[in-house]
Amino acid sequence: MHRFFIPEKSFENDQATISGDTAHQIIRVLRLTPGDQVVLLDNKGWEYQTVIKSITRDVVIGKIVNQVFGMGETSAKITLYQALLKNDKLEFVLQKGVELGVHSFVPFVSERCVAKKPSENRLERWRNIIKEAAEQSRRTCLPVLHQVISFEEACRKVLKPALILWEEEKTRGLKSLLRSPEFSNKKEISIFVGPEGGFTSFEIILANQHKIVSVGLGDRILRAETAGPTAISAIMYEKGELG
Amino acid sequence: MHRFFIPEKSFENDQATISGDTAHQIIRVLRLTPGDQVVLLDNKGWEYQTVIKSITRDVVIGKIVNQVFGMGETSAKITLYQALLKNDKLEFVLQKGVELGVHSFVPFVSERCVAKKPSENRLERWRNIIKEAAEQSRRTCLPVLHQVISFEEACRKVLKPALILWEEEKTRGLKSLLRSPEFSNKKEISIFVGPEGGFTSFEIILANQHKIVSVGLGDRILRAETAGPTAISAIMYEKGELG
Repeated sequence: MHRFFIPEKSFENDQATISGDTAHQIIRVLRLTPGDQVVLLDNKGWEYQTVIKSITRDVVIGKIVNQVFGMGETSAKITLYQALLKNDKLEFVLQKGVELGVHSFVPFVSERCVAKKPSENRLERWRNIIKEAAEQSRRTCLPVLHQVISFEEACRKVLKPALILWEEEKTRGLKSLLRSPEFSNKKEISIFVGPEGGFTSFEIILANQHKIVSVGLGDRILRAETAGPTAISAIMYEKGELG
Repeated sequence: MHRFFIPEKSFENDQATISGDTAHQIIRVLRLTPGDQVVLLDNKGWEYQTVIKSITRDVVIGKIVNQVFGMGETSAKITLYQALLKNDKLEFVLQKGVELGVHSFVPFVSERCVAKKPSENRLERWRNIIKEAAEQSRRTCLPVLHQVISFEEACRKVLKPALILWEEEKTRGLKSLLRSPEFSNKKEISIFVGPEGGFTSFEIILANQHKIVSVGLGDRILRAETAGPTAISAIMYEKGELG
């Protein structure tokens, strides 16, 4: 069944009033009609089973027939600090991150970033990718996309414990780190992933000074856009979120 | 440094003779010249540090200056049985699977597959994707791409232990399965991933009859092309291959 995040103010008692892009999607793209059912999401964790009652040119009225608290959110809250990547790569990371349960994204600019800072249009596109991936993967809260900041600011602001993926780190692996006292009982973990050219040694030193722990992902070299989803899969697995 | 798999017969004593697509890549695309270094791979695990000695129109002669046994292969050997997906999705799974260390791929056709069987051209393209991903991620053995077979044949032929990802499986998760006696000490694991529309209940019953264990990946719904790489990341993590 189709799922849509809609603003909280769209709900009133057992009725939902859907307008804007979501109404367009329902009316013009999916061509749903009165009697069809959808699931509406309030971004607070609730799922509203809804029957479409009426459709006008650009507004859909739905009657809520059931309300359950969804299971789509992980209890592990991962924040992904991702260096800007060339566009389709970053979009890929956002989409896969949402599917895997990432709680929020913080894009940052580091020394070797070649991708340009996103325009407002681009940011809007990224938010749409996040919304669609969240609806499709049955999330019940929209992951947050934060403003683009500098690597240095990210290091200062990050919530601990935090790790940084570094292909030169040969002594500390992800598994031993996640099972260390610093990480093993923590539900909120931050993870830093670099751009196509990787981090500079200076950046790693800076991160370490901010108690962001560098960690390797084994002997194969992952592409910049593969590293984040891979590490997130492993963390979710370790935290019992992958079944 | 650029890495290339070349046929074993191209090596003779401390000299390598490179022709065909790899020579084209070196001469025309990368425009390397005598004195430049490359790493050649014999697909048996060895890496040959090689200095280019001479370049003719379509042949490159290299002098091998060092030979080491590479670290690019995992000791866990995962075979991915992947249902045919729409083209770019399948290519994505192959590329990410290679990066993550998959040992071999068996594409199969199941009831809900919408993708067509690949042409010989398409298979050649898939083999190239595997080769490029293997070179780029520093693998030292080329993952094998097997022939497309039917789901039923795959069930009969699969090497155990084997698991099948099924979104309806709510009681058995990946973590408990990988830590069960049947899987925990095994280095060779087979994993089945379905097409965009998932497996039918009948297919799951058939798989179970062949002792292929159905397993869930948690409460979020992963896209068909995300499920394989996610499960592989988790298995590699569990087996200590992700650092």
